[in-house]
Amino acid sequence: MRILVLGGDGYCGWPTALYLSDRGHEIGIFDSFIRRTWDHELGVQTLTDIRPLHQRIAKWKEVSGKEIAVFPGDLTRYDHIERVLEEFRPDAVVHYAEQRSAPYSMIDREHAVFTQYNNVIGTLNLLFGIRDIVPDCHLVKLGTMGEYGTPNIDIEEGFIEIEHKGRRDRLPFPKQPGSFYHLTKVHDTNNIFFACKIWKIRATDLNQGVVYGTVTEQTMRDPVLVNRFDYDEVFGTALNRFCVQAVAGIPLTVYGKGGQTRGFIDIRDTVRCIEIACDNPPAPGEFRVFNQFTEQFNVKDLAEKVRSAAKKLGIEAEVKHYENPRIEAEEHYYNAANTKLIDLGLEPHYLDESLLDSLVNIALENKNRIDPNVILPRVTWARGRT
Amino acid sequence: MRILVLGGDGYCGWPTALYLSDRGHEIGIFDSFIRRTWDHELGVQTLTDIRPLHQRIAKWKEVSGKEIAVFPGDLTRYDHIERVLEEFRPDAVVHYAEQRSAPYSMIDREHAVFTQYNNVIGTLNLLFGIRDIVPDCHLVKLGTMGEYGTPNIDIEEGFIEIEHKGRRDRLPFPKQPGSFYHLTKVHDTNNIFFACKIWKIRATDLNQGVVYGTVTEQTMRDPVLVNRFDYDEVFGTALNRFCVQAVAGIPLTVYGKGGQTRGFIDIRDTVRCIEIACDNPPAPGEFRVFNQFTEQFNVKDLAEKVRSAAKKLGIEAEVKHYENPRIEAEEHYYNAANTKLIDLGLEPHYLDESLLDSLVNIALENKNRIDPNVILPRVTWARGRT
Repeated sequence: MRILVLGGDGYCGWPTALYLSDRGHEIGIFDSFIRRTWDHELGVQTLTDIRPLHQRIAKWKEVSGKEIAVFPGDLTRYDHIERVLEEFRPDAVVHYAEQRSAPYSMIDREHAVFTQYNNVIGTLNLLFGIRDIVPDCHLVKLGTMGEYGTPNIDIEEGFIEIEHKGRRDRLPFPKQPGSFYHLTKVHDTNNIFFACKIWKIRATDLNQGVVYGTVTEQTMRDPVLVNRFDYDEVFGTALNRFCVQAVAGIPLTVYGKGGQTRGFIDIRDTVRCIEIACDNPPAPGEFRVFNQFTEQFNVKDLAEKVRSAAKKLGIEAEVKHYENPRIEAEEHYYNAANTKLIDLGLEPHYLDESLLDSLVNIALENKNRIDPNVILPRVTWARGRT
Repeated sequence: MRILVLGGDGYCGWPTALYLSDRGHEIGIFDSFIRRTWDHELGVQTLTDIRPLHQRIAKWKEVSGKEIAVFPGDLTRYDHIERVLEEFRPDAVVHYAEQRSAPYSMIDREHAVFTQYNNVIGTLNLLFGIRDIVPDCHLVKLGTMGEYGTPNIDIEEGFIEIEHKGRRDRLPFPKQPGSFYHLTKVHDTNNIFFACKIWKIRATDLNQGVVYGTVTEQTMRDPVLVNRFDYDEVFGTALNRFCVQAVAGIPLTVYGKGGQTRGFIDIRDTVRCIEIACDNPPAPGEFRVFNQFTEQFNVKDLAEKVRSAAKKLGIEAEVKHYENPRIEAEEHYYNAANTKLIDLGLEPHYLDESLLDSLVNIALENKNRIDPNVILPRVTWARGRT
């Protein structure tokens, strides 16, 4: 299959591109490299020493014998994506090319506007490109579990059967996203659902949980293939951040009461989920939603797991409840469905001690790269960056 | 009360500004005049000979003794709205400043992107402006009944109580908008709801039905105050269009089977609904949704009403079922709630013969301005403008 990975230089995109290439697919990467620019803007860098894409690609060819085509381009520029679709003619497009940080979108007006413009207009351009150039192409779009918020009812996969005043319908699941970033994913969902209806595009919307881990079978084949490991307050995600905090001797940053429950997924399952989606395309016109996570944890329990794993490696970590910079429920009901990917063959890597050990060890190996000044939260939902 | 009307030069904005001014409020109009540019772009003009805003304002002062402040500006330019909020310091902002035509948004990629950019980013700018400059100001935002689509259950006002697997919650009503324009209203709804939660902004979202009529008590005081009357396929709305078609001798344009049912409202009720919303502001942080329509009709029945009103004036009109340029259900269940505005004091003008007579007569008076070439649909949902 010919698969174009938009955002293929990023945290999820890079291991996805390698995995699919390793599995025998013909891969193209489309990326604007703006994610690397944001690190410069924020004055942060990944814990791991990631290399430029052209070096990564050359090394992958060396270790695997496989070529990955590279298309530098920005999805908000229609001429960029138009040319690539015409040249590469993908059977599937995996769309990671969005600004994916909630705190980044909450910094100030400019960052909120940028995030909504970048994500919504980029996806619109892609929809028109698919319609006009590769109408049979399967759009595999990354959404987020954060689209649902924390309703007091079970979360289903995209749609819900509602009975109301004696009548029934299957309707889009009501969304309550919690940041200007999460809102863009809801806007995208609505735009894509509509495009499927009117143009018979086939699309899979993967509402992904919080991703943890950094290594996959492919990225470990050579140090040059190393993946991102963000631990800063803006782009770092909970579990990865906690491991770095333990090693840096900073109390683990539980926001508020820590009863916030979310879906989580190992990055090795992320790449497999993408393959499952590509291997099982929906019918033309079908808009399909899968919840892409394997386990639910609350933040407090997650911090405890990291504390105990660190302890076995001789590190005494403290868990601390910080004032919550976000506006969100800190104790709530949460029960989300996630059977559709498992029904299609996903065999989850559940969070275990070996993974936690490996993450803490990566943090230890790169300890000299940890900047303790970028860890504590400075972006607040009420007033932006303070 | 000091009320700023964004889009106050438009079809609903202009009579709203006059009505509120007449009722003793201090009014400012913020408008970019881009709506007038779109007429030039499409090669159409309103049936009525609308005058430039500065003439309208001068005449209003002459007939009423009241001043309306004018602020030329574009909501997608933050510096424009920032300056006006600082200078005018409104108690309420009535936000009509969006691209409001579904067919316009479906012309091609550029028009879809423009519509989503203009509406979503403009509203984001307004939310930040309110947060930072006039935090107690009441945002009165125009949404549309089209946000809901045509679900097989009763439509409630913004939210719905859902019971699911033995648990309950009050959640945003699931939306199924039917064009890139309608999608922007859903995006706005989600963005505003979030801003109310995190910043304690007070907002009323008015999901308006299809507006008909053109004259209000204020616009009829002088010919210079005349309101828009769009009848072209892009900006014209059903009932107004049918009246012009009857006079022009063009078979009334019922799309498909004509069983499409929608909520409708007389423009004299639109302006009153805005006043009701302003007079009854929600609490800080409250996001309130009212469905702003007074009656439901299906398109076929509406065309029959116009045909019979025209007949009494000696005009033989034909009703014709054209191939539907849109992708929508043509026969469906539809039952939408609309009690909240009535509970607050709205006394509806229901559609009657005298209103139909008056519209047909306006069409007759302006018959020489009717361009028969701009009436039949050319923008299709499947392929854009053909």
